[in-house]
Amino acid sequence: PRAPFGPALLARVAAPLSPAHAPCCYGGSNTPSHHPKPLCSLPSLRTWTKEAAASCQRMKESWSAFDTFEHHFRPLVVIELAKDTKEETKEWLTQRIVDKKKNGGAQLLVKPLVKEDGGKIDGNQNVYLVGASHIRLLLGAETVGLVKECNDNSMRTFTYSSRNTFKDFAEDNHDFLTMAERQYIIKHELENLRAKDERMIPGYAQAKLYPGKSIMRRLMTSGILLQIFPLHDTEELKKLRYTWYGQVKISYQPLDQIRCYFGETIALYFGFLEYFTFALVPMALIGIPYYVFAWEDYDKYVMFASFNLLWSTVILEVWKRCCAIMTYRWGTLLMKRQFEEPRPGFHGVLGINPVTGKEEPVYSSIKRQIRIYLVSLPFVCLCLYFSLYVMMIYFELETWALDFHEENESYFSKLMLFLPSIIYAIVIEMMNRVYRYAAEFLTSWENHRLESSHQNHLILKVLVFNFLNCFASLFYIAFVLFDMKLLRQSLATLLITSQILNQFVEALLPYWLQKRHNKKAKKRVYSIKVDTDLSLFEQVNLEKEMGTYLGTFDDYLELFLQFGYVSLFSCVYPLAAVFAVLNNITEMYSDALKICRVFKRPFSQPTANIGVWQLAFETMSIISVVTNCALIGLSPQVNALFPDSKTDLILIVVLAEHILLALKFVMAFVIPDKPRDIQIKLARLEFESLEALKQQQIKFAAESLKEETHGEKKMN
Amino acid sequence: PRAPFGPALLARVAAPLSPAHAPCCYGGSNTPSHHPKPLCSLPSLRTWTKEAAASCQRMKESWSAFDTFEHHFRPLVVIELAKDTKEETKEWLTQRIVDKKKNGGAQLLVKPLVKEDGGKIDGNQNVYLVGASHIRLLLGAETVGLVKECNDNSMRTFTYSSRNTFKDFAEDNHDFLTMAERQYIIKHELENLRAKDERMIPGYAQAKLYPGKSIMRRLMTSGILLQIFPLHDTEELKKLRYTWYGQVKISYQPLDQIRCYFGETIALYFGFLEYFTFALVPMALIGIPYYVFAWEDYDKYVMFASFNLLWSTVILEVWKRCCAIMTYRWGTLLMKRQFEEPRPGFHGVLGINPVTGKEEPVYSSIKRQIRIYLVSLPFVCLCLYFSLYVMMIYFELETWALDFHEENESYFSKLMLFLPSIIYAIVIEMMNRVYRYAAEFLTSWENHRLESSHQNHLILKVLVFNFLNCFASLFYIAFVLFDMKLLRQSLATLLITSQILNQFVEALLPYWLQKRHNKKAKKRVYSIKVDTDLSLFEQVNLEKEMGTYLGTFDDYLELFLQFGYVSLFSCVYPLAAVFAVLNNITEMYSDALKICRVFKRPFSQPTANIGVWQLAFETMSIISVVTNCALIGLSPQVNALFPDSKTDLILIVVLAEHILLALKFVMAFVIPDKPRDIQIKLARLEFESLEALKQQQIKFAAESLKEETHGEKKMN
Repeated sequence: PRAPFGPALLARVAAPLSPAHAPCCYGGSNTPSHHPKPLCSLPSLRTWTKEAAASCQRMKESWSAFDTFEHHFRPLVVIELAKDTKEETKEWLTQRIVDKKKNGGAQLLVKPLVKEDGGKIDGNQNVYLVGASHIRLLLGAETVGLVKECNDNSMRTFTYSSRNTFKDFAEDNHDFLTMAERQYIIKHELENLRAKDERMIPGYAQAKLYPGKSIMRRLMTSGILLQIFPLHDTEELKKLRYTWYGQVKISYQPLDQIRCYFGETIALYFGFLEYFTFALVPMALIGIPYYVFAWEDYDKYVMFASFNLLWSTVILEVWKRCCAIMTYRWGTLLMKRQFEEPRPGFHGVLGINPVTGKEEPVYSSIKRQIRIYLVSLPFVCLCLYFSLYVMMIYFELETWALDFHEENESYFSKLMLFLPSIIYAIVIEMMNRVYRYAAEFLTSWENHRLESSHQNHLILKVLVFNFLNCFASLFYIAFVLFDMKLLRQSLATLLITSQILNQFVEALLPYWLQKRHNKKAKKRVYSIKVDTDLSLFEQVNLEKEMGTYLGTFDDYLELFLQFGYVSLFSCVYPLAAVFAVLNNITEMYSDALKICRVFKRPFSQPTANIGVWQLAFETMSIISVVTNCALIGLSPQVNALFPDSKTDLILIVVLAEHILLALKFVMAFVIPDKPRDIQIKLARLEFESLEALKQQQIKFAAESLKEETHGEKKMN
Repeated sequence: PRAPFGPALLARVAAPLSPAHAPCCYGGSNTPSHHPKPLCSLPSLRTWTKEAAASCQRMKESWSAFDTFEHHFRPLVVIELAKDTKEETKEWLTQRIVDKKKNGGAQLLVKPLVKEDGGKIDGNQNVYLVGASHIRLLLGAETVGLVKECNDNSMRTFTYSSRNTFKDFAEDNHDFLTMAERQYIIKHELENLRAKDERMIPGYAQAKLYPGKSIMRRLMTSGILLQIFPLHDTEELKKLRYTWYGQVKISYQPLDQIRCYFGETIALYFGFLEYFTFALVPMALIGIPYYVFAWEDYDKYVMFASFNLLWSTVILEVWKRCCAIMTYRWGTLLMKRQFEEPRPGFHGVLGINPVTGKEEPVYSSIKRQIRIYLVSLPFVCLCLYFSLYVMMIYFELETWALDFHEENESYFSKLMLFLPSIIYAIVIEMMNRVYRYAAEFLTSWENHRLESSHQNHLILKVLVFNFLNCFASLFYIAFVLFDMKLLRQSLATLLITSQILNQFVEALLPYWLQKRHNKKAKKRVYSIKVDTDLSLFEQVNLEKEMGTYLGTFDDYLELFLQFGYVSLFSCVYPLAAVFAVLNNITEMYSDALKICRVFKRPFSQPTANIGVWQLAFETMSIISVVTNCALIGLSPQVNALFPDSKTDLILIVVLAEHILLALKFVMAFVIPDKPRDIQIKLARLEFESLEALKQQQIKFAAESLKEETHGEKKMN
């Protein structure tokens, strides 16, 4: 029913069955040498489909020779190779992609991008569309371990053989897997296309290969593969955009729809953004009267800070529960992280994975530990020290500029006052960029086996540095200069300017990029708004020029720093939460616009939680207990209450801090991470899997017994 | 080969096959009305055993009618009923115990205790021996989910059908299950003997029953069942005692042997005791020069305290790893807690367990939460308050007595000086006892489903109260009275007296109890040391009079309080660790003696870790960071360094405390809880169980497909 491509395309897609169509390179059509078995006596298309489906139902055998062919080719993923890629390489690559699983191929469908009217392509001619047959996708879903809902409403790991027990499954229902899932499967299969006995990429002697090396990764690092990205589904995107931000009415975000289209990681980010905004509302509401009535009493500040601290613990604990509910529904809560395939960039000698018993690259954990603790950790510490050193220089410059201005007051000296801030801002920005590259390089070099662990190490590295860069100056003002007025001023300036800047970049960037695109895609593409009418060729060419979405990292970082501004010094500036709420509301829309319109569609990434960010937010809330208690202790109102004895004041503050910290830990301990019904469902699944293991053991024992008896009989 | 019972017993044990032996009540012998199927045409004993074994191998059916009979009856567990128990009740109970599983029985063997010479029994005649056939025990091992080592050295959940894949398994190897495991299985089966449609215990109208109620529990609460305990294996015990404490040479404790004889909980306690003692040695070694050279410098104290704090974190983290290694070897690490049967005392209406889908008593979790938070928690808080109140009265009495003595110095006033301490000690002891009862009652009333969760709640309740009772006075002296001399004195007195008292009780009690036993068991039993020569009758009578071992609770509590004395105020009294080490070395021997000789043999309890004690020790080590930092801040040497500004001193101390706490958390985070090889083994098992589930789904799908095709064919 869904056919975004014209009939011309359909005809081309059906091409493999007629060998006259040279450009299509399905398995065996133009590289027959690799296909010793002739694909003879193929029945007519219609009969074949029916027969194949029936045969697949009958056969337990799954990587059938038939499933490489399908009459309905839907391009899902685009591969762009360099313009000057050698023919030999292209042939080899496409052959490997379409080759059978048992021959080490990915058994996908691939087809070069051509103009609908058959005209010559001006730009890069080495653009390929990758798709897969329905059966291939279902088998891929089993390989990646997708969890789907069953007919009895329980969530189970999908297997091809048990496909009929799953909800909404039908042999002809091509929407059983969401498009995000289909693209994820193809990405996974492509990334796990590994070298067999090739020593190099054909045509590129310098691009060395060794058994187990990911081919796509090597192509990427050799500069042959320019990019690989999933295609948008214009109709679906239109629908999603309408429900997401096209309507005027206020509503929750369509998280399930986002998840279907963009995958779990992005849906979880928007879920967290929404949850976090709602969670900030009480803080904002309580913060408003402080501004309106200019409350400066210490008891009110203490109340506000205490509420903030406990509230931040509660919201972080409750988020875990909300997250578990969502990801259980999406099936990612049950996806096992331990059995993840090694990440594409992971390298090592081919060995046996001790867990699965399968052959895959193996890298010594001790070596990784040594790299982490003896290289990465000292490097990060050095960077932190350097960052603090730069900050100290900035403060010295500041005092120097002030002195200079006071001594010889002139127009020049007034300008000089701004100089330190400008220099510091530039240096910080430069340091951030350099550090980010270094962190990425180091984390890659640590050679983590799993993508999640790679991400966590990267996030941790960047996080610590960003935290220091953002808050070190505030800490210095608060606890070394003891200047509350300056602190409030700096805090407000930092918070508001960073928010305005972000909004500006996220709202202006789309328009600017769209304009640039409109200019580039001159022919036929008059406006991006009518992209439903674009041909596939135009759509691909438009999308491949779009920027790449670099993941939710920066968005989370923004929220994390915002949380810092709100909670770390909350008793100094209660209005921060109000700004945060206002910012987040527009943030939702600008982020949605950004991901739908500005960037290339990102690959879906299944995830069960926000990972290391949870830890980061929790750590921030613990640090904020310390800072808030210290700030209250420093406030002149509180100091006025203890005119004689500073000691008593400090002791009381420390005591209060310890009680608050203890309370936080007790709360974190008492509030369960998963709601009871999810706990029960998980326990049931575990119970079932254990029972299944027992059943298998029984079967095994019965078989071994049979053999034994058989052997004994023979002996007799 | 092992036959601790004489030939007379063997003859009696083989009795069921000859109906002339009335006292033996195997299924169907004296209560034929409950056994409608006649147990006819039994082949001769020898043929039967062979045939039955063969049939059991052939049949998948497991709860065979045959397995209630075995020629080799080994009594494992003793049940003692009240003297005046009605015949009707005894008959019903024994019938229920021997009855088939499918009829709701336990399908065990039971036999009344009789004198070997056939003489009349003077004491209680209602003592029963419970055993089980080898096959029954193996099936029971599957029911309780025992994990044993396989031939390929992996640990797997035992199933009867896969028995041949397990290491050391042979059909005639009756030592495949350790004696502790066999007794645990029998206890488990007896405890899970639940009422079917009985409304009351026959003969006792007031002892109400309802479907799903544990019969043994009701018999116990009605006073009909006096006790149930496992029998000692005198030969094995002798061997164990020899390797444990019979030799003079210094060696590690035979933890694996202890585990085989007494089960995992007790072995883990001794493992922890040994580990903890070794871990204290460095502290003790560093502490000695402080005493010898009378070091009082603050920098040395700071070093000692810092080392202590970090060391205590390290040892607690490393213990988790050691514990994981041990319990993996014992198989308990893999035993699933979620699927534990409800504990015997658990009551509720019969419902469907949402996890297993099996019928069992169900109790609302919300009701339990309400009971915990609205009744237990306030009660505990009230008790804590009361305890503190009593302590304050004690300190007031102390001052009053001192004043009284100073005012009118006399012999009477001198006596009066001791009065407050004596009264306080008595009151504390009384409070402890009353509180313990109250805590046990409350925890029972909370109606936890799992024994582990019941234990954890009980331990937590008792722990908090004991902590306060032990350390509140020390805290008061340190942080309210600021009297370091008195603190050191009190600490030393408390530590040393409590240790001497404990050693005294644990070393003297055995002798005293043995003497009492020797007096009681006059006939034939001249000395307990020749107990290998005792007849079964004498052995049972001797053991049933022994005291009941109440679990490792008090032993752990002792260690916990010792850890408190060592770490909480370590910088005031560095010698504490030395005393702790010395105490623990003798403690090991006295505890071993206690469990082997003084008490009844305890039932084995599989466990994977020391449970809530880990948390308790960790909490103690966190509290000790705070107290040590505070003590260093209070010390006159440190105060002398900051003569002008107390504020600076406090700030530095607080800063140091925060850094130490942060370091502790980072260390706890960085050190993995399980060694890498155990992690891999666990991951492999999980992977296998998931693969098995997939296989099951495939099978299910294949079957449903077959049915479908069959149905279609029929339709056609």
